[in-house]
Amino acid sequence: MRIAVGGASGYAGGELLRLLLGHPDVEIGALTAGGNAGTPLGRHQPHLLPLADRVLADTTTENLAGHDVVFLALPHGHSAAVAKELGPDTLVIDCGADHRLVDQDDWNRWYGGEHAGTWPYGLPELPGNREKLTGTKRIAVPGCYPTGASLALAPALLAGIVEPDVVVTSVSGTSGAGKSLKPHLLGSEVMGSASAYGVGGTHRHTPEIAQNLGRVAGTTVTVSFTPVLAPMPRGILTTASARLTEDSDVEEIYREAYADEPFVHVLEDSWPATAATLGSNAVQLRATVDRDAHRLVVVAALDNLTKGTAGAAVQSMNIALGLPETTGLTTVGVAP
Amino acid sequence: MRIAVGGASGYAGGELLRLLLGHPDVEIGALTAGGNAGTPLGRHQPHLLPLADRVLADTTTENLAGHDVVFLALPHGHSAAVAKELGPDTLVIDCGADHRLVDQDDWNRWYGGEHAGTWPYGLPELPGNREKLTGTKRIAVPGCYPTGASLALAPALLAGIVEPDVVVTSVSGTSGAGKSLKPHLLGSEVMGSASAYGVGGTHRHTPEIAQNLGRVAGTTVTVSFTPVLAPMPRGILTTASARLTEDSDVEEIYREAYADEPFVHVLEDSWPATAATLGSNAVQLRATVDRDAHRLVVVAALDNLTKGTAGAAVQSMNIALGLPETTGLTTVGVAP
Amino acid sequence: MRIAVGGASGYAGGELLRLLLGHPDVEIGALTAGGNAGTPLGRHQPHLLPLADRVLADTTTENLAGHDVVFLALPHGHSAAVAKELGPDTLVIDCGADHRLVDQDDWNRWYGGEHAGTWPYGLPELPGNREKLTGTKRIAVPGCYPTGASLALAPALLAGIVEPDVVVTSVSGTSGAGKSLKPHLLGSEVMGSASAYGVGGTHRHTPEIAQNLGRVAGTTVTVSFTPVLAPMPRGILTTASARLTEDSDVEEIYREAYADEPFVHVLEDSWPATAATLGSNAVQLRATVDRDAHRLVVVAALDNLTKGTAGAAVQSMNIALGLPETTGLTTVGVAP
Amino acid sequence: MRIAVGGASGYAGGELLRLLLGHPDVEIGALTAGGNAGTPLGRHQPHLLPLADRVLADTTTENLAGHDVVFLALPHGHSAAVAKELGPDTLVIDCGADHRLVDQDDWNRWYGGEHAGTWPYGLPELPGNREKLTGTKRIAVPGCYPTGASLALAPALLAGIVEPDVVVTSVSGTSGAGKSLKPHLLGSEVMGSASAYGVGGTHRHTPEIAQNLGRVAGTTVTVSFTPVLAPMPRGILTTASARLTEDSDVEEIYREAYADEPFVHVLEDSWPATAATLGSNAVQLRATVDRDAHRLVVVAALDNLTKGTAGAAVQSMNIALGLPETTGLTTVGVAP
Repeated sequence: MRIAVGGASGYAGGELLRLLLGHPDVEIGALTAGGNAGTPLGRHQPHLLPLADRVLADTTTENLAGHDVVFLALPHGHSAAVAKELGPDTLVIDCGADHRLVDQDDWNRWYGGEHAGTWPYGLPELPGNREKLTGTKRIAVPGCYPTGASLALAPALLAGIVEPDVVVTSVSGTSGAGKSLKPHLLGSEVMGSASAYGVGGTHRHTPEIAQNLGRVAGTTVTVSFTPVLAPMPRGILTTASARLTEDSDVEEIYREAYADEPFVHVLEDSWPATAATLGSNAVQLRATVDRDAHRLVVVAALDNLTKGTAGAAVQSMNIALGLPETTGLTTVGVAP
Repeated sequence: MRIAVGGASGYAGGELLRLLLGHPDVEIGALTAGGNAGTPLGRHQPHLLPLADRVLADTTTENLAGHDVVFLALPHGHSAAVAKELGPDTLVIDCGADHRLVDQDDWNRWYGGEHAGTWPYGLPELPGNREKLTGTKRIAVPGCYPTGASLALAPALLAGIVEPDVVVTSVSGTSGAGKSLKPHLLGSEVMGSASAYGVGGTHRHTPEIAQNLGRVAGTTVTVSFTPVLAPMPRGILTTASARLTEDSDVEEIYREAYADEPFVHVLEDSWPATAATLGSNAVQLRATVDRDAHRLVVVAALDNLTKGTAGAAVQSMNIALGLPETTGLTTVGVAP
Repeated sequence: MRIAVGGASGYAGGELLRLLLGHPDVEIGALTAGGNAGTPLGRHQPHLLPLADRVLADTTTENLAGHDVVFLALPHGHSAAVAKELGPDTLVIDCGADHRLVDQDDWNRWYGGEHAGTWPYGLPELPGNREKLTGTKRIAVPGCYPTGASLALAPALLAGIVEPDVVVTSVSGTSGAGKSLKPHLLGSEVMGSASAYGVGGTHRHTPEIAQNLGRVAGTTVTVSFTPVLAPMPRGILTTASARLTEDSDVEEIYREAYADEPFVHVLEDSWPATAATLGSNAVQLRATVDRDAHRLVVVAALDNLTKGTAGAAVQSMNIALGLPETTGLTTVGVAP
Repeated sequence: MRIAVGGASGYAGGELLRLLLGHPDVEIGALTAGGNAGTPLGRHQPHLLPLADRVLADTTTENLAGHDVVFLALPHGHSAAVAKELGPDTLVIDCGADHRLVDQDDWNRWYGGEHAGTWPYGLPELPGNREKLTGTKRIAVPGCYPTGASLALAPALLAGIVEPDVVVTSVSGTSGAGKSLKPHLLGSEVMGSASAYGVGGTHRHTPEIAQNLGRVAGTTVTVSFTPVLAPMPRGILTTASARLTEDSDVEEIYREAYADEPFVHVLEDSWPATAATLGSNAVQLRATVDRDAHRLVVVAALDNLTKGTAGAAVQSMNIALGLPETTGLTTVGVAP
């Protein structure tokens, strides 16, 4: 299986390559970039030693064509055009947002420009998704925040034990913002600081969370989402809550919901920490009831670059190609 | 004004001394400790050079007596006994939890043991508190989380524009946990990781938040509180939200609420970051409306050791003694 | 190949298990601990999900016996007794210091107690070592600092282009100190701070560095070594220098020295950063000449827990057992 | 005393303003910037609340004129032109490199362009400097690395107990690099990583260190200098060593050398950590002898933005103006 990666000099591209280097069934073909085209990969990804001397090509359809699988880790709005020309036999996996949203109005409001359409959604743990991924040639990889929020709340909404009105605060490492050269992402600004952004429901991942949860709940779900930037390179810690509508054994509901999932681990004795998921494709989560506040509270930890992006892409690729779903992925984190 | 500090080798004690060294009206007298008694302060607080050679005395009433002001930064449950013997003429400022809660049942449930009584509460920004602090000889310094959560939500509850049912997620630096030698507080565990604890309404600061907000709202306020540990030594970033009951100009409500407060700064263009408050007594906050979720969302940043503990103690001392409230304190943080 | 790990709840033990979980030729047998015996591994190593429910046994010879390979990640001084009883057919790999030093006087001065003897040294990149490791049943894993310092300076000393008098400053992450519950290792103390320790030639790794370099140089090498603690969980960045005795093409000398080494990568365009080696068994290094100071300067980066400890152990095991040397190891780091 | 700051939106400018806000004898006048002119200071320095609404003017001589003191925190090469037009009655304090080097050839080699001349050097702790600063109208503020290296080695060179051939490795926080938008300074790259740069004697602070030490030693001093970037916003930890030429009581030599210095503190029981100096103007250092290596080893910690830049500027201003040298400065750090 020959694969290509468009956007190989960024963080998502780097993580894709890290995982693909350890995948037994793939051979790494073209690596492309935008402004970094013409330079060796080693300059941008010094941790990928086996590919250090590979020179980045331009991100064009020609360079990406001729592979069995093409991963796109491009800025939002760039995938559709590339995908169209790659033909229906190529498996195209889009790590950007272009093909995630179903609703045309959502797309117009949150992203704008022409809506490129909706592809099978690479979060196989949500009901119905795994089936749609099987054999598909087009995959939309979920956003990192929606992955945590959706997995944290889906079992409760599916069980109908909470109101369809959820509050989510997600603490994220800085790599979620990519390699953008912005002052607030400088190490000097980030270290020692926690800061909020996209407050008041203005973050673009909000409609994606609502879409996922609404499908699971069978009704519109109201989502209050606040992202927080924390001084760490990777990791998302999601805290999610919703008012309970009935008394239930939430621990049992969550245990059962994920009993057969290879990458979702329900903790029993401790609360999730992102460090335990570093570099792994695992989500560690736990749910409980706050009896005073009559709310379900769920905490989920994951690596935004692995399960939150590149790991989900590889996992979905495995499903699409009929490979064992866990091939090339691990639940073992790099800690401490 | 001669002051003494009980618990001078801990983080709260160190921050008290840092501030008091810059306070023009105080002279630093006895410094006491528990297990560290007999050792020089410099071994535990290498940043307090002017006091490096001071030898720590035992935390006994005898050693603390004879001062105009005694700050207690002791483990919970230890302040009451000491305070009792210090006499009514000494200003005793308790940084612990012993004298914060009003309700006997709350005390029994969350801390247990004999309830030592309730002292004027050192959060002068909440209505009525400043008056009670004036001239008092006993002050209960608020917990660090309740400071952020209360200041974030009080204006809205006072204005009656939200339901008395709030959700708070607070991201904290590690110094909030003190110098406890526990594995999960080791640098190797903390760096690169965000983790939740006290999930499901089990953190002891929950009833204190509810008490503050209930007094402001004039009714019982339900509080869902989740603390998150982030990889930074200091700082609390509070995200708080509640369902709106009416359409209001929340920015104006917050601006007016804190217009005369020297230490609460309402941001207009940006969202708070804890780094901007490092070492300062300022709270930086901002409120907005999430129109899709029909919720008020407020974000507040503060330094848990300064405004969250030692700064509040000094600010309250100033009020109690009739000094200008801002003496020895600053709104200027140490950044980057 | 059944393996056992003694000291499985510590950082070295955890890293051994992380690597061994990905090793195709081993099956993980007994896991033992000291004070943590009787508790599940998941409590101490939440990143090792596949082993989360394994209960730690006591570190006794009985529990460790009956395996093909036994890794010992015990406090210094505990390995010898265990190893003695395991019998000559078991491959015993000691991650502690007990069997590294050759000189009895060195042992007495730096560690004391009975000298347990000297085992083949698990740094195959130094001349002669790989041969001694082949087929051996006893391996002494190098210290993390000696690995960086030795690889940084060996080619120059072997080529005879520098005086046998070297200066080394190594910046290390905190996991090198293990899970010791000491105040200076708390996250609050470590984050935002760089600090020196073991200054003036007092760190126990000093004689090990001198031993390695002396063997390579064929003469006594004087080592001035200063370790520095930096605010990161993992990684060692070694800066090493020595006065040049002749004009040479040091870049060529280093390139040749490591041309055939799978885990030592000589950089050409950039200087090493520890992040690029996180979780990998690679050493990234580069040498240059300071013409004004007439010194060779070398910088080397590695992960102290992987190539610095557990990776070296697995690499050496592979050699000892006749497996391909790179089995279960990678040169790909987890970054950013 | 009315002061102006040129370059107020950068890190050095921000630190100058933080200190000057607490200086009892100054009034803050014009604040200027390059590309950020026209924007409010609060956008760039959210920690300087009292100045948040000040709008940055262009960095022109007109805007800076008419003040008693002008601080220049400009890119290298920009100060000379501005200073020339400010007139001889204005105290001009240059935080850049333009006026530090004495030797024309050094200037040509390391910076290039026209040499603007040499001003009194703002490191009063070196012999002769304090006298030259008294009453001066022009001050060159030292580089951050030279401050640590010079204070670490000057006493030994002055006492003649070491060879004039020194090795210095300095671990620095990222703010030393300023607010430059470069990929390697992004938080995602910096956190969790130590990296070397300017290796092999290529860092521009090298000739400045050599100049300082040469003047003290009365002979040419060879300097091998390696800077290391560590994951912290502030702080420099310098490790410096040199071969001893005679047996001496180095601890006594250092104690005496700095006995009367208000900002240099010689530790006796512990080794320096940068966190203890955060935001303070103190240097904490300690010297020892490595008997095996026959070397003096010194470790010094300071805050690169305070004593390393802005604090030195204020300290030197105090001397130049005849104010008490410590006015507006502290030896108390903000820790943990």
